[in-house]
Amino acid sequence: MIETQQNLADYQDSVRQRIDEQLSCAINTLADDTPQLKAAMRHGLLLGGKRVRPFMVYAVGDMLDVPQHQLDAAACAIECIHAYSLIHDDLPAMDDDDLRRGKPTCHVAFDEATAILAGDALQTLAFDLLSTPIEGLNAEQQLRMVKSLSQASGYIGMCGGQAMDLDATDKSITLEQLEAIHRAKTGALLQCSVDLAALAANIEPKQHLQLIKFARDIGLAFQVQDDILDVTSDTETLGKPQGSDIEANKSTYPSLLGLDGARQKADTLLQSSLQALRALPYNSDLLANFAHYIITRNY
Amino acid sequence: MIETQQNLADYQDSVRQRIDEQLSCAINTLADDTPQLKAAMRHGLLLGGKRVRPFMVYAVGDMLDVPQHQLDAAACAIECIHAYSLIHDDLPAMDDDDLRRGKPTCHVAFDEATAILAGDALQTLAFDLLSTPIEGLNAEQQLRMVKSLSQASGYIGMCGGQAMDLDATDKSITLEQLEAIHRAKTGALLQCSVDLAALAANIEPKQHLQLIKFARDIGLAFQVQDDILDVTSDTETLGKPQGSDIEANKSTYPSLLGLDGARQKADTLLQSSLQALRALPYNSDLLANFAHYIITRNY
Repeated sequence: MIETQQNLADYQDSVRQRIDEQLSCAINTLADDTPQLKAAMRHGLLLGGKRVRPFMVYAVGDMLDVPQHQLDAAACAIECIHAYSLIHDDLPAMDDDDLRRGKPTCHVAFDEATAILAGDALQTLAFDLLSTPIEGLNAEQQLRMVKSLSQASGYIGMCGGQAMDLDATDKSITLEQLEAIHRAKTGALLQCSVDLAALAANIEPKQHLQLIKFARDIGLAFQVQDDILDVTSDTETLGKPQGSDIEANKSTYPSLLGLDGARQKADTLLQSSLQALRALPYNSDLLANFAHYIITRNY
Repeated sequence: MIETQQNLADYQDSVRQRIDEQLSCAINTLADDTPQLKAAMRHGLLLGGKRVRPFMVYAVGDMLDVPQHQLDAAACAIECIHAYSLIHDDLPAMDDDDLRRGKPTCHVAFDEATAILAGDALQTLAFDLLSTPIEGLNAEQQLRMVKSLSQASGYIGMCGGQAMDLDATDKSITLEQLEAIHRAKTGALLQCSVDLAALAANIEPKQHLQLIKFARDIGLAFQVQDDILDVTSDTETLGKPQGSDIEANKSTYPSLLGLDGARQKADTLLQSSLQALRALPYNSDLLANFAHYIITRNY
């Protein structure tokens, strides 16, 4: 177990390094016509973070023997979508957050107009990267990847989830509604990370579905753990204000199930995700270890 | 001339009817999970308007013998991008406009958070529509269409143009800078409308380039005429406050060239666009007539 934990940490480090290089490169190749917009895009993309979505792209792709260069565009695209969503969610009209990963949010570091535009342009960049021909993948695969990303990030995915989340603020909601919010707001994009790697690998439908099941469970577990950390961690470790869910009067897993109930929920999802992995004919140790990490992480 | 004008008006009507039906259909098929977000997206998409971009998609596609059903996704996608850009541009942090086409802007009719999200989700919807397989087009063509739209609407296109425009407010800029702003902010998407139709038709590169030249000139002419109308028209006809450029202290073609100089600039661009059309082996009467309309329209 210690050895696999070390492998996971090493792999996470290598993903962070690779994705930072790839994202820097994507930003550096942009012309310098609008330096402030470019700087704001860079700020949003390269503020650090756990890089959970790129990790899932690369780890699943590696497991399926996809060369890493065939995964770079997908990993960057999904991180562009994630970064844009954070920039817009932090805006005064939305969650009004000044701090993200211990640094000023985009509209604080720049201004609101620039933050709105940087988010917009990062969303576009995602589709730009994913529609640039990739050696070894055919156009059909890439078009399916574009479709997958657009579904995960649009009305029926992330955007819709954020709208549901805003709508649920200051209201009492059921566990079912909370789950629907999180499956759309964060789950869809985490699931898409796995989907993009599976599409690049062109694996058979049955295994593809099994991988999606893994991603679906671990995606929700990720959010349950986020809710738990908002109660149990501290501001410095989180890099954002602790207790911000309570402050914003949002329903969370701990508020609906109690802390123990939320921990149990996370564990049930973990077990279910591990079961999905075991049904696959690949060496999924790294992913299993990552699944454990998701519900034991402290930030 | 009267006959061709009538043809143009009829064609414009038929495009407006078709695009409204197509866009309604795209919105209606969305689930009802977040009714407010859906209503805001509909508000942004179906507020009317000239539908210049869909017109260019259909008119160029028709000229090149592309069946209309192969153009619908492109026409809708480009209008989704245009609609999202108007919603975000109207926000208080950007141009702060309350009125658009004589109706309340999205953040006035709903609220700021919903307007930001509706814009975000409309951008995503554009790529969703364009990546759904279209009968008669292959994946390579569609992937090229995704690429074209992402380039036209992102950092090097529309978003960058809006950033340059905000940056130029309250500053004196050169004619060259003004042209760069408009080529990016509105020209890129107008050019893309023609590009998408040409990609659907798979025409030979030389003719493709000629069509792009037409689009490039008429795209800039469109903006010159917009600047002229901001001085010469009235609020009721425009559907937005007349004189808003002067109010916002923005450089325009009339402010840099005078009204006569601006009119001359529009005419030069018209002549150049007509020349590009004449070099094509197609019946381009409708497009030529449309080009005349662009610089004679009064709203």
